[in-house]
Amino acid sequence: MIKGIQFSGIASGIKPSGLDLGLVYFQEGTNVLTLYTNNKVKAAHILYDKKIDHTPIRALLVNSGCANACTGKEGISDLADIGKNLGKLLKIDHNKILFASTGVIGRRLPVDAIKQALPAAVKGLKETHMEDFAKAIMTTDTHQKLVKEMVKGKKEYTIIGVAKGSGMINPLFATMLAFVFTDYPVSPDTIKTTLRQAARESFEKITVDGECSTNDTIALFTKKGPEDLKGLDEFKKKLSSVMKDLAMMVVRDGEGATKIAHIIVNGAKKKDIAEKIARRIAISPLTKTAFFGCDPNWGRIMGAAGDAGVPFEPSKVDITLQGEQIVKGGLEIPFDEQKMKGLMNKKEISVIVNLNDGKSSFDIYTTDLTFDYVKINASYRS
Amino acid sequence: MIKGIQFSGIASGIKPSGLDLGLVYFQEGTNVLTLYTNNKVKAAHILYDKKIDHTPIRALLVNSGCANACTGKEGISDLADIGKNLGKLLKIDHNKILFASTGVIGRRLPVDAIKQALPAAVKGLKETHMEDFAKAIMTTDTHQKLVKEMVKGKKEYTIIGVAKGSGMINPLFATMLAFVFTDYPVSPDTIKTTLRQAARESFEKITVDGECSTNDTIALFTKKGPEDLKGLDEFKKKLSSVMKDLAMMVVRDGEGATKIAHIIVNGAKKKDIAEKIARRIAISPLTKTAFFGCDPNWGRIMGAAGDAGVPFEPSKVDITLQGEQIVKGGLEIPFDEQKMKGLMNKKEISVIVNLNDGKSSFDIYTTDLTFDYVKINASYRS
Repeated sequence: MIKGIQFSGIASGIKPSGLDLGLVYFQEGTNVLTLYTNNKVKAAHILYDKKIDHTPIRALLVNSGCANACTGKEGISDLADIGKNLGKLLKIDHNKILFASTGVIGRRLPVDAIKQALPAAVKGLKETHMEDFAKAIMTTDTHQKLVKEMVKGKKEYTIIGVAKGSGMINPLFATMLAFVFTDYPVSPDTIKTTLRQAARESFEKITVDGECSTNDTIALFTKKGPEDLKGLDEFKKKLSSVMKDLAMMVVRDGEGATKIAHIIVNGAKKKDIAEKIARRIAISPLTKTAFFGCDPNWGRIMGAAGDAGVPFEPSKVDITLQGEQIVKGGLEIPFDEQKMKGLMNKKEISVIVNLNDGKSSFDIYTTDLTFDYVKINASYRS
Repeated sequence: MIKGIQFSGIASGIKPSGLDLGLVYFQEGTNVLTLYTNNKVKAAHILYDKKIDHTPIRALLVNSGCANACTGKEGISDLADIGKNLGKLLKIDHNKILFASTGVIGRRLPVDAIKQALPAAVKGLKETHMEDFAKAIMTTDTHQKLVKEMVKGKKEYTIIGVAKGSGMINPLFATMLAFVFTDYPVSPDTIKTTLRQAARESFEKITVDGECSTNDTIALFTKKGPEDLKGLDEFKKKLSSVMKDLAMMVVRDGEGATKIAHIIVNGAKKKDIAEKIARRIAISPLTKTAFFGCDPNWGRIMGAAGDAGVPFEPSKVDITLQGEQIVKGGLEIPFDEQKMKGLMNKKEISVIVNLNDGKSSFDIYTTDLTFDYVKINASYRS
């Protein structure tokens, strides 16, 4: 709970059932810092949010069930329309309201239904209602993603992180929706590099299906007013830790996933080489189906690495699966297939690819590719 | 049938059951021209074939069930060993034998079993046995891929094309295994550019799972001796047509596929932009599962396009699905969902994305992503 930051989550009818509209109200206004998707096609809320005055932000309205992407000028004016209504209800400047959306691309928001639902959203506002908010922003997520970190000591403060995401996850800049609220006083300028770096170490190190979304948004809300520079180093660490926790919740809840795999590429000549190989392995449908089948099929890992478009020497590569080295110098070390299958039949598996070619490394988390991923995505709209 | 080119296909025990060893014998020797995978990890047969004398080639030995990739020096010396045995049996120089392999990566060939099987392979050689050969090179293929083109007229000749491929299909240079035999007399130098171009227009325009294989090989065998330049233009056309037919057989037999989608991107400022967007849409698991679900989910097509890393204007984009325009200027044209689902419930669907930004275009064929793709690849080795 953070004093002065109130949450609510209600069902407005955007989705056939369930909560779909989340509201956050900042009693005293707040700083905000955002990161948005790299996708060339950007959702209306991203185009809208970039235009409005940012400080101090007084409210955040997030809907699920409709991405409000590929909706043109109308998608943006829909937000302005909703914003004006919400501004009146909250008695705040409508230019101080931030928006975010997630759901099906190409459909416009049901503006009238949302406007009708706003009084209930405002009425539901409470400092303790963050779970309702977290639930209201879910799509194919199987559970809410909420992290609370209370820091004790001389300077006491709280960080609350909320995220949603399960599919279309392959952040290369920001990702899906993630909101971090804190009463730690720090300005956007001071924390900008840290947030960018924390995103790189959290959301940019997970992938579910290699699909970078049109709506990816991270927003960090910090307390306005005189900065606390003394506790800043600790705050930065806590912020990074909350974002990592949220990112891991997202990948663990990847669409249809039965397990996650931690892909670690080390011994690379350059970090860029390690990253490209790790990402290529992480999005490979053949490695991902092998993970699902508990199949120690290291040849697919080699094949994916070779297709990453970066130089390395196949005959130097070592591969360690679940702690067991099964490839040395590009060749198989004979192993017990049944034992390896057993080792891979876990919720989390580890794949280490050592290029033995330098000192750089990169790691990323991915999911397995399963029947349920196909099921979920072959019938998402209907 | 081509006089002087004999085929056989037998079961040598590389696979638990079924044909797995295909042999081609060229009575008079032949020219050969090859294209190999772009993957940094290359199978032993590619490394071996590049070293031997190429003209005239007297035999081609192809196995399925074992890719002989990531097998180091031993993988190459295994081929030399088998080659010497086969050379003796056929009474030819063993340096005139070409190899190709396909199957599981990382395992060595069962050399003794293959050597024991060679006499049967030689005994089975017949000009009419190309179906046995085509069957022997299959892995997860559900049927053989054989194209025969007999050209009548002043200059009479035949082109026989054989391919295998079903998964790990995303050729960016050559692809899986494809062999084209002809008694048309033309030298590798004369036909080199044509073969490269024909590959670009056939195998490089299909994808199943975005996975470029370690073993991709195209080999064209032409008649040795004085060239026929008069009929060359027609031969080039026929060659391209045979390769296109083979490529379409491969994508139609894509692992688990229930349908194929023809992705056409036009109105691009540059061909490179059209190609990157078309390829990105074609490998997107979200568009591919939507095709499987007969879901006219054009937002996923836009999302994938936006993630292709090339410039275009989302608000100019038109999308036509199965002949019905459903997006104009980046916005949805209201359509009857049930009618569109019906239109998409076909073996072949067409997706046209017009960027309205220039005159360049690119097209590619892809498959849908289905339960069976996951099933096949979660249990391929066992």
